[in-house]
Amino acid sequence: MLILTEGDLRPLVPLDLEAIATVESAFSALATQAVAMPPILRLDIPEHRGEVDVKTAYVPGVDSFAVKISPGFFDNPRLGLPSVNGLMVLLSARTGLVEALLLDNGYLTDIRTAAAGAVAARHLSREDSSIAAIFGAGVQARLQLKALTLVRPIRQARIWARDREKAALAARELAGELGIEILALDDPAQAAKHADIVVTTTPSATPILRDGWLSPGTHVTAMGSDAEHKNEIDPVLLARAFYVADRWTQTRLLGELHHAIETGLVSPDAAFPELGEILAGKAPGRPDAEALTLADLTGTGVQDTAIATLAFSRARAAGAGTTFQSQSIQRVPS
Amino acid sequence: MLILTEGDLRPLVPLDLEAIATVESAFSALATQAVAMPPILRLDIPEHRGEVDVKTAYVPGVDSFAVKISPGFFDNPRLGLPSVNGLMVLLSARTGLVEALLLDNGYLTDIRTAAAGAVAARHLSREDSSIAAIFGAGVQARLQLKALTLVRPIRQARIWARDREKAALAARELAGELGIEILALDDPAQAAKHADIVVTTTPSATPILRDGWLSPGTHVTAMGSDAEHKNEIDPVLLARAFYVADRWTQTRLLGELHHAIETGLVSPDAAFPELGEILAGKAPGRPDAEALTLADLTGTGVQDTAIATLAFSRARAAGAGTTFQSQSIQRVPS
Repeated sequence: MLILTEGDLRPLVPLDLEAIATVESAFSALATQAVAMPPILRLDIPEHRGEVDVKTAYVPGVDSFAVKISPGFFDNPRLGLPSVNGLMVLLSARTGLVEALLLDNGYLTDIRTAAAGAVAARHLSREDSSIAAIFGAGVQARLQLKALTLVRPIRQARIWARDREKAALAARELAGELGIEILALDDPAQAAKHADIVVTTTPSATPILRDGWLSPGTHVTAMGSDAEHKNEIDPVLLARAFYVADRWTQTRLLGELHHAIETGLVSPDAAFPELGEILAGKAPGRPDAEALTLADLTGTGVQDTAIATLAFSRARAAGAGTTFQSQSIQRVPS
Repeated sequence: MLILTEGDLRPLVPLDLEAIATVESAFSALATQAVAMPPILRLDIPEHRGEVDVKTAYVPGVDSFAVKISPGFFDNPRLGLPSVNGLMVLLSARTGLVEALLLDNGYLTDIRTAAAGAVAARHLSREDSSIAAIFGAGVQARLQLKALTLVRPIRQARIWARDREKAALAARELAGELGIEILALDDPAQAAKHADIVVTTTPSATPILRDGWLSPGTHVTAMGSDAEHKNEIDPVLLARAFYVADRWTQTRLLGELHHAIETGLVSPDAAFPELGEILAGKAPGRPDAEALTLADLTGTGVQDTAIATLAFSRARAAGAGTTFQSQSIQRVPS
């Protein structure tokens, strides 16, 4: 088996158009093929403010599938450690043998999550979208903005975050990296005003994007919520938007939709299109240039399988990583 | 992180009294502590006759927890590969950081499963149990018999399996290893007759142990069923036995109990004690010397966490395995 570390994986799998295309194919497969994607396994360790998610998905025609173990331990920064870690195990879809261990510390999740943001923007935002607003200033805030610039002619971005200094730093660094005008704004309403695309990337438990702040024709991607208690989007906004889920069975439980149902603004029985259905042409996309669209992204196992498979094939082509022998030994005791 | 291969793990974790005690503690914790053990994640890949189970459990007070990935691909033997493979990832319960990768190809599962058989026999069979009958002749058949000899004064064993030659070979080899009389019998009723303990270890989908074959006071451990369609025990036998589950919520869905409920012989609402409750003294055990007892073992994440933790601590003490660096790299893109 091949062992790839974060140091191996970063240069192999940057956020680029191929990563976006790979994740796009995975969403399309969700809508068109007999994808097997069981519900997320979740373990909570409240005494250490820890949680672990395990995701997996098998996509017919893809030779391998990933099992991703994502721990989040929120006291880690106090110990000088990152909160989010994890690894992916890539197995052969034909034999179940382990093909690769991707010791990515969450890096591939960052990339596939940002790539999903690009896919949502490509299929839901107006083609001429040029102003982006990003809520949050962490790794995903940065990557989501970069992802937008790969699929839309973004010429200005605004960053709002609770931590002003972090927002200012992100704006400065991203302006240098992306070569566009980037403003750090103190007022979230101001940041959202006249934006063509708004991406929310925070772990907020109360809405940070309010109805009434947006112009007609805006597209919103909410990617912060992956747990019951998280909620970035005003349920009133959601209820009037053209709503699209990454996985409807998941967003009903873990995403923004969950809160709109809870407040009674959306019926628990209401059906919504999934991103994959839209890009496979099985459901209509943006109704018109004036519509408010909203993509609710909670993260799916097919994205992990897609990015892990891309990483593995690039690693093999480049001769990267460390090969490790772990053959089976005769199982019958002598 | 430490990487341990099957070759490292076999000498470190043999089936011995400490392995049994470790698994026993894990069952006890299930009954006495706030163990977090989410439902098993299961992925099916029917086009390649493949299935993958992911199990995990956190036991308060144990420093680490295992996430076990167990693939079973049943066309593998045709390709000259073992059907069952897999690995365990051991994570720190305090930080979520990966402490060890246990590339055991299912070996630790074999040991913790056999150890659970010993725990069930120790707490449910009569202390003077001397005759064992084993149904099946595979790895678990052999390990379960060995496990019984560690906790009960077994002096004779009978082995029955559909494949007579395999049964004969197992009998011959185990007689040499364990130094007791071992008979391979063609008739399962004959094998079960007057046995003090019967252990069923097959993937059968129709009952192989019939009511009416057993003497009063027999203990039965059924460990073959870990999926809906598997069924080793006659539901009539189960319905009249003193029934004990490893995990009741699991055996209702995946174990022998599932079939007894389906046939209507057991009420879906009937409550049963768990093995951990009995050994923690929270539920009564064997009622009397004449009772027929039945342990329904479907396999639990606490057993995996227990055996993985034992393996890791022994590996560290012995300086075994390979250390692998995979530190986090600065996450914010520059």
